[in-house]
Amino acid sequence: MRENRLLQTWAGGGYTINGWLHLPSSFAAEVMAHQGWESLTIDFQHGVLDYATAVTMLQAISTTDTVPLARVSWNSPAEIMRLLDAGCYGIICPMVNNRADAERFVGACRYPPRGYRSFGPTRAMLYAGADYPEFADRHVITMAMIETVEAVENLDDILSVDGLDAIYIGPADLSQTFGGTERSDLTEPRMVDVLDRILEATRRHNVVAGIYTGSAAYAAMMVNKGAQFVTVQSDWRLMAAASRDAIAAVRASVT
Amino acid sequence: MRENRLLQTWAGGGYTINGWLHLPSSFAAEVMAHQGWESLTIDFQHGVLDYATAVTMLQAISTTDTVPLARVSWNSPAEIMRLLDAGCYGIICPMVNNRADAERFVGACRYPPRGYRSFGPTRAMLYAGADYPEFADRHVITMAMIETVEAVENLDDILSVDGLDAIYIGPADLSQTFGGTERSDLTEPRMVDVLDRILEATRRHNVVAGIYTGSAAYAAMMVNKGAQFVTVQSDWRLMAAASRDAIAAVRASVT
Amino acid sequence: MRENRLLQTWAGGGYTINGWLHLPSSFAAEVMAHQGWESLTIDFQHGVLDYATAVTMLQAISTTDTVPLARVSWNSPAEIMRLLDAGCYGIICPMVNNRADAERFVGACRYPPRGYRSFGPTRAMLYAGADYPEFADRHVITMAMIETVEAVENLDDILSVDGLDAIYIGPADLSQTFGGTERSDLTEPRMVDVLDRILEATRRHNVVAGIYTGSAAYAAMMVNKGAQFVTVQSDWRLMAAASRDAIAAVRASVT
Amino acid sequence: MRENRLLQTWAGGGYTINGWLHLPSSFAAEVMAHQGWESLTIDFQHGVLDYATAVTMLQAISTTDTVPLARVSWNSPAEIMRLLDAGCYGIICPMVNNRADAERFVGACRYPPRGYRSFGPTRAMLYAGADYPEFADRHVITMAMIETVEAVENLDDILSVDGLDAIYIGPADLSQTFGGTERSDLTEPRMVDVLDRILEATRRHNVVAGIYTGSAAYAAMMVNKGAQFVTVQSDWRLMAAASRDAIAAVRASVT
Amino acid sequence: MRENRLLQTWAGGGYTINGWLHLPSSFAAEVMAHQGWESLTIDFQHGVLDYATAVTMLQAISTTDTVPLARVSWNSPAEIMRLLDAGCYGIICPMVNNRADAERFVGACRYPPRGYRSFGPTRAMLYAGADYPEFADRHVITMAMIETVEAVENLDDILSVDGLDAIYIGPADLSQTFGGTERSDLTEPRMVDVLDRILEATRRHNVVAGIYTGSAAYAAMMVNKGAQFVTVQSDWRLMAAASRDAIAAVRASVT
Amino acid sequence: MRENRLLQTWAGGGYTINGWLHLPSSFAAEVMAHQGWESLTIDFQHGVLDYATAVTMLQAISTTDTVPLARVSWNSPAEIMRLLDAGCYGIICPMVNNRADAERFVGACRYPPRGYRSFGPTRAMLYAGADYPEFADRHVITMAMIETVEAVENLDDILSVDGLDAIYIGPADLSQTFGGTERSDLTEPRMVDVLDRILEATRRHNVVAGIYTGSAAYAAMMVNKGAQFVTVQSDWRLMAAASRDAIAAVRASVT
Repeated sequence: MRENRLLQTWAGGGYTINGWLHLPSSFAAEVMAHQGWESLTIDFQHGVLDYATAVTMLQAISTTDTVPLARVSWNSPAEIMRLLDAGCYGIICPMVNNRADAERFVGACRYPPRGYRSFGPTRAMLYAGADYPEFADRHVITMAMIETVEAVENLDDILSVDGLDAIYIGPADLSQTFGGTERSDLTEPRMVDVLDRILEATRRHNVVAGIYTGSAAYAAMMVNKGAQFVTVQSDWRLMAAASRDAIAAVRASVT
Repeated sequence: MRENRLLQTWAGGGYTINGWLHLPSSFAAEVMAHQGWESLTIDFQHGVLDYATAVTMLQAISTTDTVPLARVSWNSPAEIMRLLDAGCYGIICPMVNNRADAERFVGACRYPPRGYRSFGPTRAMLYAGADYPEFADRHVITMAMIETVEAVENLDDILSVDGLDAIYIGPADLSQTFGGTERSDLTEPRMVDVLDRILEATRRHNVVAGIYTGSAAYAAMMVNKGAQFVTVQSDWRLMAAASRDAIAAVRASVT
Repeated sequence: MRENRLLQTWAGGGYTINGWLHLPSSFAAEVMAHQGWESLTIDFQHGVLDYATAVTMLQAISTTDTVPLARVSWNSPAEIMRLLDAGCYGIICPMVNNRADAERFVGACRYPPRGYRSFGPTRAMLYAGADYPEFADRHVITMAMIETVEAVENLDDILSVDGLDAIYIGPADLSQTFGGTERSDLTEPRMVDVLDRILEATRRHNVVAGIYTGSAAYAAMMVNKGAQFVTVQSDWRLMAAASRDAIAAVRASVT
Repeated sequence: MRENRLLQTWAGGGYTINGWLHLPSSFAAEVMAHQGWESLTIDFQHGVLDYATAVTMLQAISTTDTVPLARVSWNSPAEIMRLLDAGCYGIICPMVNNRADAERFVGACRYPPRGYRSFGPTRAMLYAGADYPEFADRHVITMAMIETVEAVENLDDILSVDGLDAIYIGPADLSQTFGGTERSDLTEPRMVDVLDRILEATRRHNVVAGIYTGSAAYAAMMVNKGAQFVTVQSDWRLMAAASRDAIAAVRASVT
Repeated sequence: MRENRLLQTWAGGGYTINGWLHLPSSFAAEVMAHQGWESLTIDFQHGVLDYATAVTMLQAISTTDTVPLARVSWNSPAEIMRLLDAGCYGIICPMVNNRADAERFVGACRYPPRGYRSFGPTRAMLYAGADYPEFADRHVITMAMIETVEAVENLDDILSVDGLDAIYIGPADLSQTFGGTERSDLTEPRMVDVLDRILEATRRHNVVAGIYTGSAAYAAMMVNKGAQFVTVQSDWRLMAAASRDAIAAVRASVT
Repeated sequence: MRENRLLQTWAGGGYTINGWLHLPSSFAAEVMAHQGWESLTIDFQHGVLDYATAVTMLQAISTTDTVPLARVSWNSPAEIMRLLDAGCYGIICPMVNNRADAERFVGACRYPPRGYRSFGPTRAMLYAGADYPEFADRHVITMAMIETVEAVENLDDILSVDGLDAIYIGPADLSQTFGGTERSDLTEPRMVDVLDRILEATRRHNVVAGIYTGSAAYAAMMVNKGAQFVTVQSDWRLMAAASRDAIAAVRASVT
């Protein structure tokens, strides 16, 4: 079975940089897969894309060795299983607030007896190899989002669920549920403290920590603090910023 | 009828900055339409997109006052007319090498008696208004690509075709047909001389000059030389470059 | 932030006429957006359309000032949030039968602390403006369907949920659960009585009342009774009826 | 092989009413196929649709015995052959202005030795039956558009081309090329005279006459004059008119 | 209303052979509908397809008298109802493990008072006829998957739910939850015994038994044991095997 | 630049087996790419697919080392160039009947000065590598269809066109233009003689010979005669035949 390169890097103590896909386009995904991101996450929660397009995006990513991930729109076993069958090598699940949420999520990603994933890895076997059924449980990453007050309170419960590989911090929702107004790259001391507590807990439970960020600087800072999986913006935000920069540069140089 | 803002700006002696769309996605097009490009060109020649997606892209662009254009894949009346019916406010036509090519192209964009465009502006009337049939010929921009040795030799013939509003320089093909190897932002003295001759001819014929460029600096230089319509890269190239920059910035700051 | 024109009209005591979209086509949606409907509702419950097409339909509607709404297929937070992120300015939710249903629904439409909507208004910010996060809770309409015996019994509970803006009567399901056979434009005295009780309750709770109808006459009657939001048929039913009329008219006049 | 019901009706001296499809939706096509149109024409010239969607529309039409036709965007053999292979039972070809145009068109619809259609009726054999290759030439309708001054001048040449089954009058283009401003349902005496001459010529050559109309009354009048194939408006125009009528009817009845 | 031919055959004691659709293509579905399968099941659980494509697949199947079914991805009323509205004549529901699961499933397929299906059979009325609302409950097949230890333990509870027409055995999941490694065409004596117990229970409760198989031989064996609904492989597996056979045959004959 | 494996095999005197794609599905294409075909040809002439889907099919094929080819619908430079830009490593062009046809075709596949291909290998550079512009002319296969009496008469003219790599025999059209009725696997002595003459001419001109066949046996026979590129049926025909076989096998074994 094809290795999951993220797990290899993390096991060696390294970190990986993740691209975030909101554009519903297999060509956009293929372009992104050639830029050096170690993984790409197709976002079903806030991206404007759907399953049918996502399958073509997964195919496009599969033309490279970039690791394909998806964030599901909900802790929904059907959605999770369909994306795994389509060849995702990991799932980011929103709104994991307690042990029951985490168990429901992790169970959907594992075959019996470890979980309750239904058998039918239609495209996954093309992508990963004929021995996928035997080894999938070792390679599929489970990443629970920590993004509410409740989740922070239940951190130890969540992090101790067997089969949970990683957590992913959603700064906007986390900040909102704490009553803050910052939406990414949190710098409020209170929130920085929350982030530090989360990182500390992941170290204690030997679970990988990941986070969405709005800038390379913040991403690097989080890696330096111990995060091993960092996202920097999303495909369309990168394109939008580059567009504005290009236009401004022309305007500035026309005499 | 809704005005064509490009024509207004050009008539005032101003220049406009054009975005270039290769991504087959209405959401990508809508994002681009919010960044400040005065027009967006859907490229059917080298973009990986098709007519059905282009219609949704035109709708997305129409949520703003960005002017929608298309480059057709060929000097094909059917393709040109279909895109005009879908609401494009201008057509960039490749491989216009002589007067006959230019007449064929311009005629496809104009209703009788000025041309031979077939009547049926299905979506164009929603976009532009109920009086579109009466005024379309005034608002639809015709832009012929100058991209071969032959076209340069026939410049005066081409530029004197009645109804031709503008030309668009394709630097890669132009350079290749002259035997060069540069593909954009041409700096070879021989090619710079060709560009200057083209600009000079457009001034003489009172036709707007446009060009594809690979950088804001080159685009600004061309505006300073008299070009009134400049493209800077394409949607996916901007996204790709911004991705590589972000990744490099993280790597550089991780200790 | 772009105003929600429905809320403005309702606040002034006026009524609005809503078009109903079952056709999975952005061009059909754009045509409908130009006919004078104050709002258009994309129906995920009984329409033959999906999320990806709906995004292009929302873009098409956004080329006008018609207000875009959606009926979700279920009281599903994930589906609700995805449609709000895509730029819907209101959600009609089926099967709201008690207070818990209503709270679950309204909470999915509001950011913390008013609800539990996750942050990520990807397209909504393009449509509504950069200050969408700050003002969205004021502009997004929540409309609960009243369509069962149980819902009628729990009307006061449902209508007193904080943040519920309106209710929408589903006559077919309402009639069926009461054991009737009429499916729209209910005239059975027993059902007319139920409708009157619903209208009376909405007045008491200062909640807007809406209803699906099968004819302009019934819609007008409901407005005269106090409804402020009326749907008349659906896109394809209008097209089908007009087709049959045209064919019959030809047959009648051929000699 | 499945019969072509239009040919049967025409052979008996009858007329048929044709629906016109601009909406890119298989569901819209299926709805239209259930309303009583004897045939439905998918319009590639002025409709906002493409080949991939058209295939699904042809499948939807095939759930009924409505005859599927297409108007191509141009006298293009490749486009014509692809639509025939997809199961169209007739082609309306724009801009047939002389004998050469007509021969090029008819030849593309017939297998050798009658024409030069390439062999590969992929979906047509599913729709029509396994003996399609043997009998296709008898069932596929060829319908040339007469829509220019030049075509009217060359009528006898065009109508005498072997294998041409019918002509289709495009009133808007016809009127425009004659210098008129009417776009459908022509009533200018000069144009009425042109129409009468066309009808007279078709009778003389034993070729069926068809026409696009904007109203049932005009369609019936043309049938009474001898046309055997009449279109009344298009899918979206019927939907748009019905929408405006419904809205006006509500407004008129609200007190 | 159009009859459900499966119910007719089963009532006569006969069996039917079912094709399994994973390919997201209406053309693939139409091809399959012409090969002799009595029914075709669109698989949302493990197929790489989505609702929008499924609608076109249902249209393609409707060009023949093959019975259209769907397997849903989950025991989700919204998904079930949407597929019934789109014209499915039966639903296979995964993970029905106890009476509550079965009641939830069956209720979603039946209108009040037999169930809680919401009214709006948009495409179903085109497919089945105008009297669909009256007779749908008689024609729509409910088929619960038996695929876990728990389901086997609760067989009598499940099979006695009013309105359940059939069960469908999922051999891979069944085997996995029993701790086995076989994934289809189970031959382990322990599993054969489980299958026999399931068949025996269906006979006792007068419920039809169905099963997925990986070969014609196993399917025939199951029919001989009493199964009345057998699937043999899936569309793409048939295509893949035929491809490998063709390639091997060429290699074997080249000298 | 990524090698073209077909050219390598042919240069060594070997033959390759080609799969033929008519199904408009990237998943079907990915399945086919895993079965052992050395190349896969996306057929735009008789397949029911379009450019947008073809791009996703090319991406799917690119997840393996199967060589992606396309047959265009016509000798159309625009269509040819768009498919090359999308990453095809070879083009099969129908209806090449004389030297002019062949030159037009080959020129569209080669950059200046060898031809007139326009520069813009958008996806091709992702697939093949950054040095694609420099080496593309060496790797892109040009394959002209020989399928008419005229082409056979002009064989030497066609085969001597510089840059033509291969020819592909279309047996159905070839047979039809010769007045025959066989459509593939031609056995009429007259046609066998024609095929032998074609093979002989390709040997003389050092051009590779290819052919479409309907069976492995015929394909092997043609290889034994010298063909180096053989197609065996198409994706959906393989699926259809395997379906009928499976159904028949069940019927035969049920007692």
